Amino acid sequence: MKIVTTIEEIKKEIDLKKKEGKTIGFVPTMGYLHEGHLSLVERAKQENDVTVMSVFVNPLQFGPNEDYQTYPRDIKRDEELARQKGVDLFFAPTKEEMYPEEPAVTVKVTKRVDVLCGKSRPGHFDGVATVLTKLFHIITPDRAYFGLKDAQQVAVVTALIKDLNFPIEIVPVETVREEDGLAKSSRNVRLDEQERKEAVHLYQSLLMAKEMVENKVHDQEAIIEKMRAYITEKTSGEIDYIDILTYPDLKKPNALTGKIIVAIAVKFKHARLIDNIIIDLT
Amino acid sequence: MKIVTTIEEIKKEIDLKKKEGKTIGFVPTMGYLHEGHLSLVERAKQENDVTVMSVFVNPLQFGPNEDYQTYPRDIKRDEELARQKGVDLFFAPTKEEMYPEEPAVTVKVTKRVDVLCGKSRPGHFDGVATVLTKLFHIITPDRAYFGLKDAQQVAVVTALIKDLNFPIEIVPVETVREEDGLAKSSRNVRLDEQERKEAVHLYQSLLMAKEMVENKVHDQEAIIEKMRAYITEKTSGEIDYIDILTYPDLKKPNALTGKIIVAIAVKFKHARLIDNIIIDLT
Repeated sequence: MKIVTTIEEIKKEIDLKKKEGKTIGFVPTMGYLHEGHLSLVERAKQENDVTVMSVFVNPLQFGPNEDYQTYPRDIKRDEELARQKGVDLFFAPTKEEMYPEEPAVTVKVTKRVDVLCGKSRPGHFDGVATVLTKLFHIITPDRAYFGLKDAQQVAVVTALIKDLNFPIEIVPVETVREEDGLAKSSRNVRLDEQERKEAVHLYQSLLMAKEMVENKVHDQEAIIEKMRAYITEKTSGEIDYIDILTYPDLKKPNALTGKIIVAIAVKFKHARLIDNIIIDLT
Repeated sequence: MKIVTTIEEIKKEIDLKKKEGKTIGFVPTMGYLHEGHLSLVERAKQENDVTVMSVFVNPLQFGPNEDYQTYPRDIKRDEELARQKGVDLFFAPTKEEMYPEEPAVTVKVTKRVDVLCGKSRPGHFDGVATVLTKLFHIITPDRAYFGLKDAQQVAVVTALIKDLNFPIEIVPVETVREEDGLAKSSRNVRLDEQERKEAVHLYQSLLMAKEMVENKVHDQEAIIEKMRAYITEKTSGEIDYIDILTYPDLKKPNALTGKIIVAIAVKFKHARLIDNIIIDLT
């Protein structure tokens, strides 16, 4: 595995691979890798000749009161995990390399963002779309891999690709879970022992919702209320949102048909966790 | 010359050329071609194996009270001129092809836009940057050609390429002028006979400014005032702006050093004309 920190060098490496006619699979991450990320690498390796991973904690997608400074980082461990998993090119640029000055041009997302996590993170997805646009131009992948744990991000990236005609295929990959069902996340390490035990109930509440939907419960508010009561009873966390939306448009469904997403975010004392389940009712 | 109207087909054509190892030069236009555009084609042909021209009047870059509906169009004449000049691929998509629905993701320009034409056209350069991003992703050119008549556009596109890391070289091309010095423009046809005679004074006023700058006149306001008096005396037009700025940053210069631009916009009864001159004082 080649470790690269400058844009010039990664472009040179990619260029060499392209000249050999190789296809490029790309896994963009903010590092502190877990099995979720590694499942993206696995998938990328199956479908492409060369797998590129980026590790970059993107300041543009953090709000002023968010955890940019304290977002967990461990680049040496990331390198080791990526190497073990078979990443070919590991791109870890500095903030200065990616943003040598305040950008004059950015990408703006105006739909699919005023719900779920986007609602309480104004500008977050603008930052995500901007850094991905930059990375897509630098890496020029054939396919890019995103975990469905952040389903809203997948929905936004799908719109980014479509609306701006990127010549890239987006591959959404199923959420990887701990044995008890907790979705893998870089932020899980912050949970204390008690919170870690409670955290399993996010997924449990989603399975409960899925069962209700599949049993033809049509009252969306009733489903949300039942989840709310369950989380309140079973955890010490504060519910940020529980929502049922169409997928990937992320609009309020008139009826529970087509593809829908049930999504939840809960603030624990030491970390805010998200999870979701997409139910195909077509 | 191949005429193509769908994104799918132009991508297929480009793909074939790329597989043969050919370089792609791209001339994006809004049509109603004149010698200015054709000079871009000429330059593109010199520097690339394949020259692609797009003709698309982009609704996104027109304000609600601007001339989107009445912007001059003559696609048959454009095709003929492009063919004569040696364009290889002529891409003329419909509005529906480029914007099948209201986009959720667009490109936003926050610097270099609150001066010159951008000042009175809020959102104009967002529209320009968005359509160019789409076209760049569809055409994937090695080089893209822009006329310096719209120097602010060149400055914005330069920032677009740099800030979003497009793997494309921008080639700015000198303004082509009529024999009397009037910058070629699609809107010139709207001038009546008297206005057409007066229009020459835009360039004359710029040459006057250039001479003053080269003769070490340092008082920017004095230069602007002299131009203003000249235009007012010699034309029936209403001055929209006369400005002296750094180039390509488009900031107020502390002193007349480095690269500077003198730019002018004058509203005649039937058309608003712009022109500029870039003076290299390095």
